[in-house]
Amino acid sequence: MADGSREQAAGPETAASAGNVTAEQRAEIDAQRAETFATRRPTVAALEDLLYRPLPVLDHGFVRVIDYFGDDAAIVQAARVSYGKGTKKVSDDRNLIRYLMRHRHSTPFEMCEIKLHVKLPIFVARQWIRHRTANVNEYSARYSILDREFYVPVPAQLAKQSRTNRQGRGEVLQGSEAETALATIENLSADAYAAYTRLLNEDQAGNVIAEGRDGLARELARMVVPTNFYTQWYWKIDLNNLFHFLSLRADAHAQYEIRVYADAICGIVEKWCPIAYEAFCDYRMTAAAVSGPGLKVIRRLLAGEPVVQETSGLSKREWAELMAVVDRKA
Amino acid sequence: MADGSREQAAGPETAASAGNVTAEQRAEIDAQRAETFATRRPTVAALEDLLYRPLPVLDHGFVRVIDYFGDDAAIVQAARVSYGKGTKKVSDDRNLIRYLMRHRHSTPFEMCEIKLHVKLPIFVARQWIRHRTANVNEYSARYSILDREFYVPVPAQLAKQSRTNRQGRGEVLQGSEAETALATIENLSADAYAAYTRLLNEDQAGNVIAEGRDGLARELARMVVPTNFYTQWYWKIDLNNLFHFLSLRADAHAQYEIRVYADAICGIVEKWCPIAYEAFCDYRMTAAAVSGPGLKVIRRLLAGEPVVQETSGLSKREWAELMAVVDRKA
Amino acid sequence: MADGSREQAAGPETAASAGNVTAEQRAEIDAQRAETFATRRPTVAALEDLLYRPLPVLDHGFVRVIDYFGDDAAIVQAARVSYGKGTKKVSDDRNLIRYLMRHRHSTPFEMCEIKLHVKLPIFVARQWIRHRTANVNEYSARYSILDREFYVPVPAQLAKQSRTNRQGRGEVLQGSEAETALATIENLSADAYAAYTRLLNEDQAGNVIAEGRDGLARELARMVVPTNFYTQWYWKIDLNNLFHFLSLRADAHAQYEIRVYADAICGIVEKWCPIAYEAFCDYRMTAAAVSGPGLKVIRRLLAGEPVVQETSGLSKREWAELMAVVDRKA
Amino acid sequence: MADGSREQAAGPETAASAGNVTAEQRAEIDAQRAETFATRRPTVAALEDLLYRPLPVLDHGFVRVIDYFGDDAAIVQAARVSYGKGTKKVSDDRNLIRYLMRHRHSTPFEMCEIKLHVKLPIFVARQWIRHRTANVNEYSARYSILDREFYVPVPAQLAKQSRTNRQGRGEVLQGSEAETALATIENLSADAYAAYTRLLNEDQAGNVIAEGRDGLARELARMVVPTNFYTQWYWKIDLNNLFHFLSLRADAHAQYEIRVYADAICGIVEKWCPIAYEAFCDYRMTAAAVSGPGLKVIRRLLAGEPVVQETSGLSKREWAELMAVVDRKA
Repeated sequence: MADGSREQAAGPETAASAGNVTAEQRAEIDAQRAETFATRRPTVAALEDLLYRPLPVLDHGFVRVIDYFGDDAAIVQAARVSYGKGTKKVSDDRNLIRYLMRHRHSTPFEMCEIKLHVKLPIFVARQWIRHRTANVNEYSARYSILDREFYVPVPAQLAKQSRTNRQGRGEVLQGSEAETALATIENLSADAYAAYTRLLNEDQAGNVIAEGRDGLARELARMVVPTNFYTQWYWKIDLNNLFHFLSLRADAHAQYEIRVYADAICGIVEKWCPIAYEAFCDYRMTAAAVSGPGLKVIRRLLAGEPVVQETSGLSKREWAELMAVVDRKA
Repeated sequence: MADGSREQAAGPETAASAGNVTAEQRAEIDAQRAETFATRRPTVAALEDLLYRPLPVLDHGFVRVIDYFGDDAAIVQAARVSYGKGTKKVSDDRNLIRYLMRHRHSTPFEMCEIKLHVKLPIFVARQWIRHRTANVNEYSARYSILDREFYVPVPAQLAKQSRTNRQGRGEVLQGSEAETALATIENLSADAYAAYTRLLNEDQAGNVIAEGRDGLARELARMVVPTNFYTQWYWKIDLNNLFHFLSLRADAHAQYEIRVYADAICGIVEKWCPIAYEAFCDYRMTAAAVSGPGLKVIRRLLAGEPVVQETSGLSKREWAELMAVVDRKA
Repeated sequence: MADGSREQAAGPETAASAGNVTAEQRAEIDAQRAETFATRRPTVAALEDLLYRPLPVLDHGFVRVIDYFGDDAAIVQAARVSYGKGTKKVSDDRNLIRYLMRHRHSTPFEMCEIKLHVKLPIFVARQWIRHRTANVNEYSARYSILDREFYVPVPAQLAKQSRTNRQGRGEVLQGSEAETALATIENLSADAYAAYTRLLNEDQAGNVIAEGRDGLARELARMVVPTNFYTQWYWKIDLNNLFHFLSLRADAHAQYEIRVYADAICGIVEKWCPIAYEAFCDYRMTAAAVSGPGLKVIRRLLAGEPVVQETSGLSKREWAELMAVVDRKA
Repeated sequence: MADGSREQAAGPETAASAGNVTAEQRAEIDAQRAETFATRRPTVAALEDLLYRPLPVLDHGFVRVIDYFGDDAAIVQAARVSYGKGTKKVSDDRNLIRYLMRHRHSTPFEMCEIKLHVKLPIFVARQWIRHRTANVNEYSARYSILDREFYVPVPAQLAKQSRTNRQGRGEVLQGSEAETALATIENLSADAYAAYTRLLNEDQAGNVIAEGRDGLARELARMVVPTNFYTQWYWKIDLNNLFHFLSLRADAHAQYEIRVYADAICGIVEKWCPIAYEAFCDYRMTAAAVSGPGLKVIRRLLAGEPVVQETSGLSKREWAELMAVVDRKA
């Protein structure tokens, strides 16, 4: 959740591309935002304000809130199996929510539900879908033609392979190396889209390219499209499982390209259920699981005993991880 | 969904017990119903009207709608992964929803979500909980004292063991046999509650019964309570999984005591998503799965060939089931 | 499950590529197959014979059985909650299994579990993963380098877009159109792999391509790879959910490229649990769900009444679907 | 996992009741244990030795392993998506498994599966079933007659309601209070079973009690049975979800009556996947999640700064919990 990532997440908005949607899509969204209804259901003003608006992520993606139910009070109400609102003093409710989070009483958090519309590169979608406890409706390239939209990283994200972590990134590429990499990504993506439409014999608007020729079936033609192309889906999940998603995907070890989506969703949840979100930050995002052997080391250190890796009972790697958690130079 | 069952489901309402809730609970509910908010989210007027109100089921149970999101249009919107409302002409939307139901495209139905508060006997809860794709918060008898409320069937439901179906009911008990059975259930339930409070050394209101004595822990004392006692929970589920629940539990083979809850929920869904509900009735509730061998028999019959069980290739049981489906005397 | 599909599923095996694995992989597999152990667990001889062996699917893919537990008897044993084997006469067991399948008593089928190793194109994997009730471990392109293996359809599968079904295939492309399409797919795939390794600055074997240059992180470079490239995963599922997968993916409406995998798995299940598989074919694969209104039509027809679409109460589409089910020309 | 609990879990075995099964059930089990088969699947000798044997839990319950697949090596094999065994040096495999556990890479643990037969009181079953990611086949009291077996705590477990934890136990009841409580539980349970068979007009063996009378349907009669009566089920789960179950149910805060089952299962997993089990103990069971604010306190303390609750930024309750974790008197 570094500033850099927030920056790209927000991106520069222009009149033409505001929120990474077209003018036509924007008009549909605005029309939906213009209507208001009366309801007996609890509402969250800060989320109503956000409803339907695309929050831009990466160069062509976004996250939009399509629907929600529940709020901080709904967590309390479910935990108490209440007949009415079920809430008491704000401080009592806050204590209860924090207690539930701390002690892994997860079911009351499942009583809040949110539905998002997300536009994201296919390789991000492939990680995302691994979270099984959610509902998904994806745009079908068997049925419709894909847009000519593909992800190209900003130069600050063109990282080398990490030398210490086999699945991570190291320093950023410089100068001509960065230029070459960008050009390679852009050219291949453009070539792939050209091949795709040639196979279809249709352009993005559905117009026939060469009269008298037949096009390959959409479900086949799509196979030449690389995974940096954008797809989109409706994605619906309860707050407990969303917190699990965020704890893995807003984590510093997550790949940058999914983390920016998780960051955007963190911002949404903060508006939606601020008390639960604060508890999530304190007890999950900024918390650390300290192993049994690690706790013994901390106890010895707090008792004033000098402990080093060799006398700790921990492996070098675990020792380094523990020292990082307690901010001591290993 | 026979009339008889609907009758008990509705039950006679008196001022004191309207909806099987206490006056105090009723007041909490009314207070919540009195508030209205402005929202950009789609609302369903018929469901708003129902919101929070207990629909009585059995002698002490109920179902209440606590929250919902989505409607028929949301199914269409998700199937089309739309930017705006996503709906077109009503007839197009209806056709699409019926097509989705008929061809088992289930994911768009998962985009509607509902939360219910249900009060139900423990033995019904034990069947209900087998549906795993739902969220549940149950009233905890480790934490709180159970009410003195237990299910006693009405005489019309005091059925004998079926002779043909090892897990079904046969004819209704008559006269003194029925009276004896009712008395047995009532007496044992009353004795059990007395034992429960004696173990707790607390009455239902939490008052100590015998000063100077200790009470057994609640998590232990509850074990003497029979499964006809009522529990309650918040239960949340998406429309696709709810349809699956209803197809099994509103079915004629389901036990009466859970079927009346399923019937009450059918009435709710009919108000909530009338087009989807109609499709569900046509393609699921009143539909029949005809086996491959069964289809062959139907084809032969339609071609004018006389077919009897012996020449059908079906077992006696399958033949009888098929003849029942096509309404012919086996 | 047409013959044509079976044909490609089997594919021509050569010494070099037997089962679409390398000689080295084949040696690992053979070594594992050479070992035998004693167990008290039930075994299925026909499945033991198949264990670990790759069944080739498409041009580079395969399905291998890695592990399994349960068999037809285990379904019976669970349905009876038995202390011992729980099975009785073979005919009784068969009747019970068929009864369970017919009446949607699905939980006993969940008591059998199978683990497969599957190699498949990414676009197939993206459909497959939508089945959420399974366990998956996928090969990670964040961590490892992808092989230069991509799917190119055989000419018989180069179909045009269907004119009647927006997500299906029509006739096969002919002559130069087919050649052009194949060349387009092959060239783009080759170019993409070249771009991929250039970005990595490593070839498939992990050798540096240009000394002194840096490579892009693997998690980024992979994004230029099209979805016809192969990935692989370990996939584990219970028999009930596997039947659900097969009912959708071995269906004639499924995309050919996933259907051949489903067909291969059907062959595995037939060996593993032959009685359950037969019941699945009779009551699911070859069965049809006839709607309530459709059943009324069948009843009228069987009673000798002439019914046409206009008097059926069905839409044209539903009428055509019903007539197809009962094999009458609409 | 205190010694006391292990003691009752094991219980005194007599010839008649060895393992809490009847002589007839024992014979069925022994017959199944007597058979051995050849398999290519990996086997775990220590688990084969245990297979089918009932491990007694509480006064009438047990846990039996019915089937399993996978072992420590299968976790490694799945993490590496291997063609053969996938294992390397034992120390490498151990490091990998510990790394996976530490960093919440949970999917490889899902590649091991186990099936148990469990006999347990209904109130325990009601907690247990809340773990949704498992497969269950329960003995049906709609279909069969329940045995006359109910749970009566040993005197050491007759605890008072805790004064500090609203859902926990305090000190043990003494003398006549304990005797009265036991008598209350036993008498009510006996009365309930008598009412149950009277309603059925059948005894436990299925013999008619009073000729000429009708019995109530089983699905109704069962409702008078209290939740301390035993039920039984086949329960199947993967290792990752089993670890989650154990982390909650073998925890000191779990109710004693479910904890003894979790303890018995811990003993099984220790035999089945010893390396994974050790990692689970180190990183989950004996570990503690320290909140972000808690970590700050530890850092200040380790830096030699005196910190008390008032200056910690923690609530009194959180401070006490943190001090307990680091073993300092709050």
